[in-house]
Amino acid sequence: MDTGFRDELKAAAAATEAVLARLLGDEGGAPKRLVAAMRHGAVEGGKRLRPFLLIESARMFGKEGEGVVRAAAALECAHCYSLVHDDLPAMDDDDLRRGRPTVHKAFDEATAILAGDALLTLAFAILADTETDPDPAVRTELIAGLAAAAGATGMVGGQMLDLAAETQATVGEADVRRIQAMKTGALFRYACEAGAILGRADVEGRRRLADFGGALGLAFQLADDLIDATGRADTAGKATAKDARRGKATLVGLHGVEAATAMLESAVADAIALLAPFGNKARRLAAAARFAGRREA
Amino acid sequence: MDTGFRDELKAAAAATEAVLARLLGDEGGAPKRLVAAMRHGAVEGGKRLRPFLLIESARMFGKEGEGVVRAAAALECAHCYSLVHDDLPAMDDDDLRRGRPTVHKAFDEATAILAGDALLTLAFAILADTETDPDPAVRTELIAGLAAAAGATGMVGGQMLDLAAETQATVGEADVRRIQAMKTGALFRYACEAGAILGRADVEGRRRLADFGGALGLAFQLADDLIDATGRADTAGKATAKDARRGKATLVGLHGVEAATAMLESAVADAIALLAPFGNKARRLAAAARFAGRREA
Repeated sequence: MDTGFRDELKAAAAATEAVLARLLGDEGGAPKRLVAAMRHGAVEGGKRLRPFLLIESARMFGKEGEGVVRAAAALECAHCYSLVHDDLPAMDDDDLRRGRPTVHKAFDEATAILAGDALLTLAFAILADTETDPDPAVRTELIAGLAAAAGATGMVGGQMLDLAAETQATVGEADVRRIQAMKTGALFRYACEAGAILGRADVEGRRRLADFGGALGLAFQLADDLIDATGRADTAGKATAKDARRGKATLVGLHGVEAATAMLESAVADAIALLAPFGNKARRLAAAARFAGRREA
Repeated sequence: MDTGFRDELKAAAAATEAVLARLLGDEGGAPKRLVAAMRHGAVEGGKRLRPFLLIESARMFGKEGEGVVRAAAALECAHCYSLVHDDLPAMDDDDLRRGRPTVHKAFDEATAILAGDALLTLAFAILADTETDPDPAVRTELIAGLAAAAGATGMVGGQMLDLAAETQATVGEADVRRIQAMKTGALFRYACEAGAILGRADVEGRRRLADFGGALGLAFQLADDLIDATGRADTAGKATAKDARRGKATLVGLHGVEAATAMLESAVADAIALLAPFGNKARRLAAAARFAGRREA
Protein backbone atom coordinates (compact mmCIF):
# COMPACT_ATOMS: atom_id res chain seq x y z
CA MET A 1 0.00 0.00 0.00
CA ASP A 2 2.81 2.36 0.96
CA THR A 3 4.87 1.74 -2.17
CA GLY A 4 1.66 1.89 -4.17
CA PHE A 5 0.86 5.33 -2.84
CA ARG A 6 4.34 6.64 -3.49
CA ASP A 7 4.19 5.37 -7.05
CA GLU A 8 0.77 6.96 -7.57
CA LEU A 9 2.02 10.25 -6.18
CA LYS A 10 4.99 10.09 -8.53
CA ALA A 11 2.78 9.25 -11.50
CA ALA A 12 0.49 12.21 -10.79
CA ALA A 13 3.52 14.47 -10.37
CA ALA A 14 5.03 13.27 -13.66
CA ALA A 15 1.77 13.78 -15.54
CA THR A 16 1.37 17.30 -14.09
CA GLU A 17 5.01 18.07 -14.82
CA ALA A 18 4.59 17.07 -18.46
CA VAL A 19 1.55 19.32 -18.92
CA LEU A 20 3.24 22.23 -17.10
CA ALA A 21 6.39 21.86 -19.18
CA ARG A 22 4.33 21.91 -22.36
CA LEU A 23 2.22 24.90 -21.29
CA LEU A 24 5.33 26.81 -20.24
CA GLY A 25 7.40 25.71 -23.21
CA ASP A 26 5.37 27.39 -25.91
CA GLU A 27 4.36 30.76 -24.53
CA GLY A 28 4.13 32.37 -27.99
CA GLY A 29 5.11 36.02 -27.81
CA ALA A 30 6.01 36.00 -24.11
CA PRO A 31 9.45 37.36 -23.12
CA LYS A 32 11.96 34.50 -22.77
CA ARG A 33 13.27 35.64 -19.39
CA LEU A 34 9.74 35.83 -17.99
CA VAL A 35 8.94 32.32 -19.18
CA ALA A 36 12.24 31.07 -17.74
CA ALA A 37 11.30 32.56 -14.37
CA MET A 38 7.83 31.02 -14.57
CA ARG A 39 9.41 27.65 -15.31
CA HIS A 40 11.86 28.09 -12.44
CA GLY A 41 8.92 28.72 -10.12
CA ALA A 42 6.62 25.99 -11.38
CA VAL A 43 8.47 23.22 -13.21
CA GLU A 44 10.59 20.45 -11.70
CA GLY A 45 9.79 20.85 -8.08
CA GLY A 46 7.66 19.75 -5.22
CA LYS A 47 5.72 16.63 -4.44
CA ARG A 48 2.73 17.94 -6.41
CA LEU A 49 0.37 16.98 -3.61
CA ARG A 50 -2.41 19.29 -4.76
CA PRO A 51 -2.38 17.95 -8.33
CA PHE A 52 -2.39 14.41 -6.92
CA LEU A 53 -5.43 15.20 -4.78
CA LEU A 54 -7.28 16.75 -7.71
CA ILE A 55 -6.45 13.86 -10.03
CA GLU A 56 -7.40 11.19 -7.48
CA SER A 57 -10.58 12.98 -6.43
CA ALA A 58 -11.69 13.11 -10.07
CA ARG A 59 -10.74 9.46 -10.56
CA MET A 60 -12.87 8.46 -7.56
CA PHE A 61 -15.86 9.86 -9.45
CA GLY A 62 -14.85 8.02 -12.61
CA LYS A 63 -13.17 10.91 -14.41
CA GLU A 64 -9.61 10.81 -15.72
CA GLY A 65 -7.53 11.92 -18.66
CA GLU A 66 -5.79 14.94 -20.13
CA GLY A 67 -8.42 17.47 -19.03
CA VAL A 68 -8.09 16.45 -15.39
CA VAL A 69 -4.30 16.76 -15.55
CA ARG A 70 -4.68 20.21 -17.10
CA ALA A 71 -6.86 21.29 -14.18
CA ALA A 72 -4.22 19.85 -11.84
CA ALA A 73 -1.54 21.85 -13.66
CA ALA A 74 -3.63 25.02 -13.32
CA LEU A 75 -3.96 24.42 -9.59
CA GLU A 76 -0.21 23.92 -9.32
CA CYS A 77 0.39 27.20 -11.20
CA ALA A 78 -1.76 28.96 -8.60
CA HIS A 79 0.13 27.24 -5.77
CA CYS A 80 3.54 28.02 -7.26
CA TYR A 81 2.65 31.68 -7.91
CA SER A 82 1.90 32.00 -4.19
CA LEU A 83 5.27 30.49 -3.30
CA VAL A 84 7.10 32.86 -5.66
CA HIS A 85 5.39 35.89 -4.12
CA ASP A 86 5.58 34.66 -0.52
CA ASP A 87 9.35 34.18 -0.91
CA LEU A 88 9.89 37.85 -1.90
CA PRO A 89 12.03 40.08 0.33
CA ALA A 90 8.98 42.17 1.29
CA MET A 91 7.23 38.99 2.50
CA ASP A 92 8.96 35.90 3.92
CA ASP A 93 12.34 36.79 2.36
CA ASP A 94 13.42 33.25 1.55
CA ASP A 95 16.53 32.45 -0.48
CA LEU A 96 15.91 28.73 -0.80
CA ARG A 97 12.93 26.74 -2.06
CA ARG A 98 12.95 23.02 -2.80
CA GLY A 99 16.73 23.11 -2.43
CA ARG A 100 17.16 25.72 -5.19
CA PRO A 101 17.42 29.53 -5.19
CA THR A 102 14.02 31.21 -5.05
CA VAL A 103 12.87 33.03 -8.21
CA HIS A 104 13.89 36.50 -7.04
CA LYS A 105 17.34 35.10 -6.14
CA ALA A 106 17.78 33.25 -9.45
CA PHE A 107 16.41 36.22 -11.43
CA ASP A 108 15.45 39.49 -9.71
CA GLU A 109 12.60 40.92 -7.69
CA ALA A 110 10.68 42.55 -10.52
CA THR A 111 10.89 39.37 -12.58
CA ALA A 112 9.70 37.30 -9.61
CA ILE A 113 6.68 39.55 -9.07
CA LEU A 114 5.78 39.37 -12.76
CA ALA A 115 6.42 35.62 -13.02
CA GLY A 116 4.04 35.09 -10.08
CA ASP A 117 1.44 37.34 -11.70
CA ALA A 118 1.78 35.45 -14.97
CA LEU A 119 1.50 32.03 -13.28
CA LEU A 120 -1.71 33.06 -11.53
CA THR A 121 -3.12 34.38 -14.81
CA LEU A 122 -2.05 31.19 -16.60
CA ALA A 123 -3.94 29.12 -14.05
CA PHE A 124 -7.19 30.79 -15.10
CA ALA A 125 -6.27 30.60 -18.80
CA ILE A 126 -5.81 26.83 -18.50
CA LEU A 127 -9.13 26.35 -16.70
CA ALA A 128 -11.01 28.51 -19.22
CA ASP A 129 -9.79 26.42 -22.16
CA THR A 130 -12.14 23.86 -23.73
CA GLU A 131 -9.38 21.24 -23.53
CA THR A 132 -9.75 21.18 -19.74
CA ASP A 133 -13.42 20.24 -19.96
CA PRO A 134 -15.84 20.51 -22.88
CA ASP A 135 -18.65 21.83 -20.63
CA PRO A 136 -18.31 25.59 -20.01
CA ALA A 137 -20.48 25.29 -16.88
CA VAL A 138 -17.88 22.93 -15.40
CA ARG A 139 -15.07 25.28 -16.39
CA THR A 140 -16.71 28.31 -14.76
CA GLU A 141 -17.25 26.29 -11.57
CA LEU A 142 -13.57 25.35 -11.56
CA ILE A 143 -12.62 29.00 -12.11
CA ALA A 144 -15.00 30.38 -9.48
CA GLY A 145 -13.72 27.80 -7.00
CA LEU A 146 -10.06 28.60 -7.65
CA ALA A 147 -10.68 32.35 -7.43
CA ALA A 148 -12.48 31.92 -4.10
CA ALA A 149 -9.77 29.64 -2.70
CA ALA A 150 -6.86 31.76 -3.90
CA GLY A 151 -8.14 35.30 -3.30
CA ALA A 152 -8.67 37.73 -0.44
CA THR A 153 -10.90 35.35 1.54
CA GLY A 154 -8.53 32.43 0.91
CA MET A 155 -4.84 32.05 0.20
CA VAL A 156 -3.93 35.73 -0.27
CA GLY A 157 -5.92 36.72 2.82
CA GLY A 158 -4.17 33.98 4.81
CA GLN A 159 -0.73 35.23 3.81
CA MET A 160 -1.80 38.75 4.81
CA LEU A 161 -2.87 37.50 8.27
CA ASP A 162 0.28 35.41 8.56
CA LEU A 163 2.48 38.46 7.98
CA ALA A 164 0.41 40.53 10.42
CA ALA A 165 0.71 37.79 13.05
CA GLU A 166 4.50 38.17 13.05
CA THR A 167 4.18 41.59 14.68
CA GLN A 168 1.20 40.76 16.89
CA ALA A 169 1.82 40.54 20.64
CA THR A 170 -0.19 37.36 21.09
CA VAL A 171 -1.37 34.91 18.46
CA GLY A 172 -3.79 32.36 19.82
CA GLU A 173 -4.99 29.01 18.54
CA ALA A 174 -8.03 30.56 16.80
CA ASP A 175 -5.73 32.93 14.87
CA VAL A 176 -3.37 30.13 13.88
CA ARG A 177 -6.22 27.92 12.73
CA ARG A 178 -7.80 30.73 10.73
CA ILE A 179 -4.49 31.55 9.05
CA GLN A 180 -3.90 27.88 8.21
CA ALA A 181 -7.44 27.38 6.88
CA MET A 182 -7.07 30.40 4.58
CA LYS A 183 -3.40 30.25 3.62
CA THR A 184 -3.06 26.54 2.87
CA GLY A 185 -6.38 24.89 3.75
CA ALA A 186 -8.43 26.68 1.08
CA LEU A 187 -6.31 25.38 -1.79
CA PHE A 188 -6.30 21.82 -0.40
CA ARG A 189 -10.10 22.01 -0.12
CA TYR A 190 -10.26 23.28 -3.67
CA ALA A 191 -7.94 20.54 -4.99
CA CYS A 192 -10.35 17.84 -3.85
CA GLU A 193 -13.51 19.77 -4.70
CA ALA A 194 -12.19 20.51 -8.21
CA GLY A 195 -11.78 16.77 -8.77
CA ALA A 196 -15.37 16.29 -7.64
CA ILE A 197 -16.55 19.06 -9.99
CA LEU A 198 -14.74 17.45 -12.93
CA GLY A 199 -16.22 14.09 -11.91
CA ARG A 200 -19.77 15.52 -11.86
CA ALA A 201 -20.21 14.64 -8.19
CA ASP A 202 -23.46 15.67 -6.51
CA VAL A 203 -23.61 18.44 -3.90
CA GLU A 204 -23.02 16.03 -1.03
CA GLY A 205 -20.04 14.46 -2.78
CA ARG A 206 -18.52 17.85 -3.47
CA ARG A 207 -18.95 18.95 0.12
CA ARG A 208 -17.38 15.75 1.45
CA LEU A 209 -14.40 16.05 -0.85
CA ALA A 210 -13.91 19.71 0.06
CA ASP A 211 -14.01 18.83 3.77
CA PHE A 212 -11.63 15.92 3.16
CA GLY A 213 -9.25 18.36 1.46
CA GLY A 214 -9.57 20.74 4.39
CA ALA A 215 -8.71 18.03 6.93
CA LEU A 216 -5.83 16.85 4.78
CA GLY A 217 -4.55 20.42 4.43
CA LEU A 218 -4.49 20.78 8.20
CA ALA A 219 -2.66 17.46 8.47
CA PHE A 220 -0.04 18.53 5.93
CA GLN A 221 0.39 21.90 7.65
CA LEU A 222 0.89 20.21 11.02
CA ALA A 223 3.33 17.75 9.45
CA ASP A 224 5.19 20.64 7.82
CA ASP A 225 5.39 22.55 11.10
CA LEU A 226 6.61 19.41 12.88
CA ILE A 227 9.30 18.93 10.23
CA ASP A 228 10.31 22.57 10.67
CA ALA A 229 10.50 22.14 14.44
CA THR A 230 12.28 18.80 14.48
CA GLY A 231 13.82 18.25 11.04
CA ARG A 232 17.10 18.96 9.35
CA ALA A 233 17.57 21.31 6.40
CA ASP A 234 19.44 18.75 4.30
CA THR A 235 16.58 16.25 4.36
CA ALA A 236 13.75 18.79 4.30
CA GLY A 237 15.11 20.48 1.16
CA LYS A 238 14.58 23.91 2.66
CA ALA A 239 15.60 25.97 5.66
CA THR A 240 14.21 24.53 8.91
CA ALA A 241 13.61 25.91 12.41
CA LYS A 242 12.71 29.17 10.71
CA ASP A 243 9.25 29.34 12.32
CA ALA A 244 10.80 29.51 15.78
CA ARG A 245 13.54 31.90 14.60
CA ARG A 246 10.91 34.25 13.25
CA GLY A 247 8.62 33.83 16.22
CA LYS A 248 5.98 32.54 13.81
CA ALA A 249 3.00 31.12 15.64
CA THR A 250 2.19 27.50 14.78
CA LEU A 251 0.16 24.83 16.55
CA VAL A 252 3.49 23.12 17.30
CA GLY A 253 4.81 26.31 18.87
CA LEU A 254 1.63 26.85 20.88
CA HIS A 255 1.10 23.32 22.14
CA GLY A 256 4.40 21.47 21.69
CA VAL A 257 5.42 18.56 19.48
CA GLU A 258 3.45 15.90 21.34
CA ALA A 259 0.11 17.72 21.30
CA ALA A 260 0.62 18.76 17.67
CA THR A 261 1.32 15.14 16.75
CA ALA A 262 -1.98 14.15 18.38
CA MET A 263 -3.76 16.89 16.41
CA LEU A 264 -2.15 15.58 13.24
CA GLU A 265 -3.45 12.08 13.97
CA SER A 266 -6.89 13.50 14.63
CA ALA A 267 -6.91 15.43 11.35
CA VAL A 268 -5.91 12.27 9.48
CA ALA A 269 -8.70 10.31 11.18
CA ASP A 270 -11.21 13.06 10.29
CA ALA A 271 -10.07 12.98 6.68
CA ILE A 272 -10.37 9.21 6.40
CA ALA A 273 -13.81 9.19 8.08
CA LEU A 274 -15.11 11.60 5.44
CA LEU A 275 -14.24 9.04 2.75
CA ALA A 276 -16.32 6.26 4.33
CA PRO A 277 -19.28 6.46 1.90
CA PHE A 278 -16.97 5.91 -1.08
CA GLY A 279 -15.61 2.58 0.16
CA ASN A 280 -12.76 1.03 -1.77
CA LYS A 281 -12.91 3.74 -4.45
CA ALA A 282 -11.37 6.11 -1.90
CA ARG A 283 -8.36 3.83 -1.39
CA ARG A 284 -5.83 6.20 -2.95
CA LEU A 285 -7.11 9.31 -1.17
CA ALA A 286 -7.10 7.46 2.15
CA ALA A 287 -3.49 6.47 1.49
CA ALA A 288 -2.67 10.15 0.98
CA ALA A 289 -4.20 10.95 4.36
CA ARG A 290 -2.17 8.21 6.04
CA PHE A 291 0.95 9.48 4.28
CA ALA A 292 0.33 12.97 5.74
CA GLY A 293 0.07 11.37 9.17
CA ARG A 294 3.60 10.07 9.02
CA ARG A 295 4.94 13.66 8.86
CA GLU A 296 7.65 12.89 6.35
CA ALA A 297 9.42 15.57 4.35
CA MET B 1 -21.08 65.90 -28.76
CA ASP B 2 -18.09 66.76 -26.60
CA THR B 3 -20.14 67.39 -23.46
CA GLY B 4 -22.20 64.33 -24.32
CA PHE B 5 -19.09 62.14 -24.41
CA ARG B 6 -17.78 63.50 -21.13
CA ASP B 7 -21.12 62.83 -19.47
CA GLU B 8 -21.19 59.28 -20.87
CA LEU B 9 -17.64 58.66 -19.64
CA LYS B 10 -18.63 59.93 -16.20
CA ALA B 11 -21.76 57.79 -16.16
CA ALA B 12 -19.79 54.64 -17.03
CA ALA B 13 -17.19 55.53 -14.39
CA ALA B 14 -19.88 56.06 -11.74
CA ALA B 15 -21.60 52.77 -12.59
CA THR B 16 -18.27 50.90 -12.45
CA GLU B 17 -17.34 52.66 -9.23
CA ALA B 18 -20.60 51.60 -7.58
CA VAL B 19 -20.09 47.94 -8.50
CA LEU B 20 -16.45 48.02 -7.41
CA ALA B 21 -17.35 49.65 -4.10
CA ARG B 22 -19.97 46.98 -3.47
CA LEU B 23 -17.69 44.09 -4.46
CA LEU B 24 -14.90 45.47 -2.28
CA GLY B 25 -17.16 46.44 0.59
CA ASP B 26 -18.33 42.98 1.54
CA GLU B 27 -15.31 40.74 1.27
CA GLY B 28 -16.58 38.30 3.87
CA GLY B 29 -13.70 36.81 5.80
CA ALA B 30 -10.98 38.84 4.09
CA PRO B 31 -8.54 40.76 6.32
CA LYS B 32 -9.68 44.40 6.71
CA ARG B 33 -6.28 45.87 5.89
CA LEU B 34 -6.04 43.85 2.70
CA VAL B 35 -9.48 44.99 1.56
CA ALA B 36 -8.57 48.60 2.43
CA ALA B 37 -5.47 48.30 0.23
CA MET B 38 -7.52 46.76 -2.58
CA ARG B 39 -9.99 49.65 -2.32
CA HIS B 40 -7.14 52.16 -2.28
CA GLY B 41 -5.83 50.64 -5.50
CA ALA B 42 -9.14 50.21 -7.30
CA VAL B 43 -11.86 52.51 -5.93
CA GLU B 44 -12.22 56.26 -6.49
CA GLY B 45 -9.68 56.81 -9.17
CA GLY B 46 -9.03 57.09 -12.84
CA LYS B 47 -11.13 57.95 -15.81
CA ARG B 48 -12.30 54.33 -16.11
CA LEU B 49 -11.65 54.36 -19.83
CA ARG B 50 -11.49 50.60 -20.13
CA PRO B 51 -14.84 50.07 -18.37
CA PHE B 52 -16.33 52.78 -20.61
CA LEU B 53 -15.07 50.99 -23.71
CA LEU B 54 -16.43 47.64 -22.53
CA ILE B 55 -19.81 49.11 -21.60
CA GLU B 56 -20.16 51.06 -24.85
CA SER B 57 -18.98 48.15 -26.99
CA ALA B 58 -21.62 45.93 -25.41
CA ARG B 59 -24.26 48.64 -25.84
CA MET B 60 -23.43 48.91 -29.54
CA PHE B 61 -24.47 45.26 -29.86
CA GLY B 62 -27.65 45.90 -27.88
CA LYS B 63 -26.45 44.60 -24.51
CA GLU B 64 -26.54 46.65 -21.31
CA GLY B 65 -27.27 46.27 -17.61
CA GLU B 66 -25.74 45.07 -14.37
CA GLY B 67 -23.87 42.12 -15.91
CA VAL B 68 -22.04 44.35 -18.36
CA VAL B 69 -21.00 46.72 -15.56
CA ARG B 70 -19.76 43.75 -13.54
CA ALA B 71 -17.57 42.69 -16.47
CA ALA B 72 -16.33 46.29 -16.69
CA ALA B 73 -15.52 46.25 -12.97
CA ALA B 74 -13.61 42.97 -13.42
CA LEU B 75 -11.58 44.53 -16.20
CA GLU B 76 -10.83 47.54 -14.01
CA CYS B 77 -9.69 45.22 -11.18
CA ALA B 78 -7.22 43.65 -13.62
CA HIS B 79 -6.04 47.08 -14.77
CA CYS B 80 -5.67 48.40 -11.21
CA TYR B 81 -3.79 45.30 -10.03
CA SER B 82 -1.23 45.98 -12.76
CA LEU B 83 -0.85 49.59 -11.60
CA VAL B 84 -0.38 48.51 -7.97
CA HIS B 85 2.35 46.04 -8.95
CA ASP B 86 3.99 48.30 -11.56
CA ASP B 87 4.31 51.07 -8.94
CA LEU B 88 6.29 48.82 -6.56
CA PRO B 89 9.88 49.78 -5.66
CA ALA B 90 11.24 46.75 -7.55
CA MET B 91 9.45 47.93 -10.70
CA ASP B 92 8.68 51.57 -11.59
CA ASP B 93 9.05 52.78 -7.98
CA ASP B 94 6.30 55.40 -8.07
CA ASP B 95 5.12 57.27 -4.98
CA LEU B 96 2.19 59.00 -6.62
CA ARG B 97 -0.77 57.68 -8.62
CA ARG B 98 -3.84 59.70 -9.53
CA GLY B 99 -2.62 62.41 -7.16
CA ARG B 100 -2.56 60.04 -4.16
CA PRO B 101 0.13 57.90 -2.54
CA THR B 102 0.57 54.55 -4.29
CA VAL B 103 -0.59 51.45 -2.39
CA HIS B 104 2.86 50.47 -1.11
CA LYS B 105 3.32 54.06 0.14
CA ALA B 106 -0.09 54.24 1.81
CA PHE B 107 0.30 50.72 3.25
CA ASP B 108 3.49 48.71 2.76
CA GLU B 109 5.18 46.63 0.09
CA ALA B 110 3.91 43.22 1.19
CA THR B 111 0.36 44.54 1.41
CA ALA B 112 0.64 46.10 -2.05
CA ILE B 113 1.85 42.83 -3.58
CA LEU B 114 -1.00 40.93 -1.93
CA ALA B 115 -3.62 43.57 -2.78
CA GLY B 116 -2.57 43.34 -6.43
CA ASP B 117 -2.73 39.55 -6.32
CA ALA B 118 -6.19 39.70 -4.74
CA LEU B 119 -7.48 42.24 -7.29
CA LEU B 120 -6.36 40.04 -10.18
CA THR B 121 -8.00 37.03 -8.57
CA LEU B 122 -11.17 39.04 -7.92
CA ALA B 123 -11.34 39.97 -11.61
CA PHE B 124 -11.68 36.29 -12.50
CA ALA B 125 -14.09 35.65 -9.62
CA ILE B 126 -16.40 38.39 -10.93
CA LEU B 127 -16.31 37.07 -14.49
CA ALA B 128 -16.98 33.49 -13.37
CA ASP B 129 -20.13 34.49 -11.47
CA THR B 130 -23.54 33.84 -13.04
CA GLU B 131 -24.54 37.43 -12.30
CA THR B 132 -22.11 38.65 -14.95
CA ASP B 133 -23.81 36.60 -17.66
CA PRO B 134 -26.18 33.66 -17.35
CA ASP B 135 -24.42 31.75 -20.17
CA PRO B 136 -21.31 29.92 -18.90
CA ALA B 137 -19.93 29.78 -22.46
CA VAL B 138 -19.93 33.58 -22.54
CA ARG B 139 -18.27 33.73 -19.12
CA THR B 140 -15.48 31.34 -20.11
CA GLU B 141 -14.85 33.41 -23.26
CA LEU B 142 -14.60 36.55 -21.12
CA ILE B 143 -12.20 34.77 -18.76
CA ALA B 144 -10.06 33.26 -21.51
CA GLY B 145 -9.85 36.67 -23.17
CA LEU B 146 -8.84 38.46 -19.98
CA ALA B 147 -6.24 35.82 -19.12
CA ALA B 148 -4.71 36.10 -22.60
CA ALA B 149 -4.69 39.91 -22.51
CA ALA B 150 -3.33 40.17 -18.97
CA GLY B 151 -0.77 37.33 -18.89
CA ALA B 152 2.72 36.56 -20.12
CA THR B 153 1.88 37.23 -23.77
CA GLY B 154 0.00 40.44 -22.89
CA MET B 155 0.15 42.96 -20.07
CA VAL B 156 2.60 41.14 -17.77
CA GLY B 157 4.89 40.34 -20.69
CA GLY B 158 4.76 43.97 -21.79
CA GLN B 159 5.79 45.21 -18.35
CA MET B 160 8.66 42.70 -18.39
CA LEU B 161 9.87 44.03 -21.75
CA ASP B 162 9.39 47.61 -20.58
CA LEU B 163 11.65 47.03 -17.56
CA ALA B 164 14.22 45.27 -19.73
CA ALA B 165 14.19 48.16 -22.20
CA GLU B 166 15.36 50.56 -19.48
CA THR B 167 18.76 48.86 -19.43
CA GLN B 168 18.97 48.14 -23.16
CA ALA B 169 21.50 50.15 -25.18
CA THR B 170 19.10 50.88 -28.02
CA VAL B 171 15.35 50.54 -28.11
CA GLY B 172 13.92 50.96 -31.58
CA GLU B 173 10.44 51.68 -32.86
CA ALA B 174 9.61 47.99 -33.25
CA ASP B 175 10.50 47.38 -29.57
CA VAL B 176 8.44 50.35 -28.39
CA ARG B 177 5.44 49.29 -30.45
CA ARG B 178 5.67 45.70 -29.20
CA ILE B 179 5.87 46.87 -25.59
CA GLN B 180 2.90 49.20 -26.05
CA ALA B 181 0.81 46.54 -27.80
CA MET B 182 1.43 44.08 -24.95
CA LYS B 183 1.55 46.35 -21.92
CA THR B 184 -1.46 48.57 -22.63
CA GLY B 185 -2.81 47.62 -26.05
CA ALA B 186 -3.85 44.09 -25.11
CA LEU B 187 -6.19 45.26 -22.34
CA PHE B 188 -7.72 47.97 -24.55
CA ARG B 189 -8.31 45.34 -27.24
CA TYR B 190 -9.88 43.10 -24.64
CA ALA B 191 -12.11 45.89 -23.27
CA CYS B 192 -13.80 46.30 -26.63
CA GLU B 193 -13.81 42.61 -27.51
CA ALA B 194 -15.37 41.74 -24.14
CA GLY B 195 -18.24 44.12 -24.92
CA ALA B 196 -18.67 42.35 -28.25
CA ILE B 197 -18.62 38.94 -26.50
CA LEU B 198 -21.30 40.06 -24.04
CA GLY B 199 -23.30 41.49 -26.97
CA ARG B 200 -23.14 38.17 -28.86
CA ALA B 201 -21.37 39.79 -31.79
CA ASP B 202 -20.31 37.54 -34.66
CA VAL B 203 -16.65 36.72 -35.36
CA GLU B 204 -16.23 39.69 -37.70
CA GLY B 205 -17.79 42.07 -35.16
CA ARG B 206 -15.53 40.77 -32.41
CA ARG B 207 -12.45 41.15 -34.56
CA ARG B 208 -13.37 44.72 -35.54
CA LEU B 209 -14.00 45.72 -31.95
CA ALA B 210 -10.72 44.17 -30.81
CA ASP B 211 -8.84 46.05 -33.55
CA PHE B 212 -10.69 49.25 -32.65
CA GLY B 213 -9.57 48.77 -29.05
CA GLY B 214 -6.00 48.20 -30.21
CA ALA B 215 -5.96 51.42 -32.25
CA LEU B 216 -7.54 53.32 -29.38
CA GLY B 217 -5.00 51.88 -26.94
CA LEU B 218 -2.18 53.12 -29.15
CA ALA B 219 -3.85 56.55 -29.32
CA PHE B 220 -4.20 56.75 -25.54
CA GLN B 221 -0.59 55.63 -25.07
CA LEU B 222 0.64 58.29 -27.48
CA ALA B 223 -1.55 60.90 -25.77
CA ASP B 224 -0.19 59.80 -22.37
CA ASP B 225 3.40 60.01 -23.59
CA LEU B 226 2.72 63.46 -25.07
CA ILE B 227 1.23 64.62 -21.75
CA ASP B 228 4.30 63.26 -19.97
CA ALA B 229 6.61 65.08 -22.38
CA THR B 230 4.74 68.39 -22.46
CA GLY B 231 2.38 68.49 -19.46
CA ARG B 232 2.53 69.72 -15.91
CA ALA B 233 2.26 67.48 -12.83
CA ASP B 234 -0.51 69.52 -11.23
CA THR B 235 -2.89 69.11 -14.17
CA ALA B 236 -1.82 65.57 -15.10
CA GLY B 237 -2.46 64.28 -11.55
CA LYS B 238 0.82 62.40 -11.55
CA ALA B 239 4.52 63.01 -11.96
CA THR B 240 5.41 64.15 -15.48
CA ALA B 241 8.59 64.21 -17.58
CA LYS B 242 9.47 60.94 -15.88
CA ASP B 243 9.86 59.05 -19.16
CA ALA B 244 12.69 61.36 -20.23
CA ARG B 245 14.23 61.33 -16.72
CA ARG B 246 14.30 57.55 -16.76
CA GLY B 247 15.45 57.35 -20.35
CA LYS B 248 12.30 55.36 -21.10
CA ALA B 249 11.85 54.87 -24.81
CA THR B 250 8.55 56.16 -26.18
CA LEU B 251 7.43 57.06 -29.70
CA VAL B 252 7.54 60.70 -28.56
CA GLY B 253 11.14 60.29 -27.44
CA LEU B 254 12.12 58.48 -30.66
CA HIS B 255 10.38 60.74 -33.16
CA GLY B 256 9.59 64.00 -31.35
CA VAL B 257 6.33 65.66 -30.36
CA GLU B 258 5.28 66.63 -33.89
CA ALA B 259 5.70 63.18 -35.42
CA ALA B 260 4.08 61.53 -32.40
CA THR B 261 1.11 63.87 -32.73
CA ALA B 262 0.74 62.80 -36.35
CA MET B 263 0.88 59.14 -35.27
CA LEU B 264 -1.80 59.86 -32.70
CA GLU B 265 -4.05 61.37 -35.36
CA SER B 266 -3.44 58.38 -37.58
CA ALA B 267 -4.32 55.93 -34.79
CA VAL B 268 -7.56 57.83 -34.12
CA ALA B 269 -8.44 57.74 -37.83
CA ASP B 270 -7.74 53.98 -37.93
CA ALA B 271 -9.97 53.46 -34.92
CA ILE B 272 -12.85 55.46 -36.38
CA ALA B 273 -12.55 53.74 -39.77
CA LEU B 274 -12.99 50.34 -38.08
CA LEU B 275 -16.38 51.48 -36.76
CA ALA B 276 -17.75 52.36 -40.22
CA PRO B 277 -19.97 49.27 -40.62
CA PHE B 278 -21.81 50.07 -37.38
CA GLY B 279 -22.96 53.53 -38.50
CA ASN B 280 -24.64 55.72 -35.92
CA LYS B 281 -24.62 52.95 -33.32
CA ALA B 282 -20.88 53.52 -32.98
CA ARG B 283 -21.35 57.21 -32.13
CA ARG B 284 -20.15 56.92 -28.52
CA LEU B 285 -17.12 54.79 -29.35
CA ALA B 286 -16.15 57.18 -32.13
CA ALA B 287 -16.39 60.06 -29.65
CA ALA B 288 -14.00 58.16 -27.37
CA ALA B 289 -11.52 57.91 -30.23
CA ARG B 290 -11.79 61.63 -30.97
CA PHE B 291 -11.34 62.34 -27.25
CA ALA B 292 -8.10 60.33 -27.28
CA GLY B 293 -6.96 62.43 -30.24
CA ARG B 294 -7.09 65.62 -28.22
CA ARG B 295 -4.40 64.29 -25.84
CA GLU B 296 -5.98 65.68 -22.71
CA ALA B 297 -5.10 64.46 -19.26
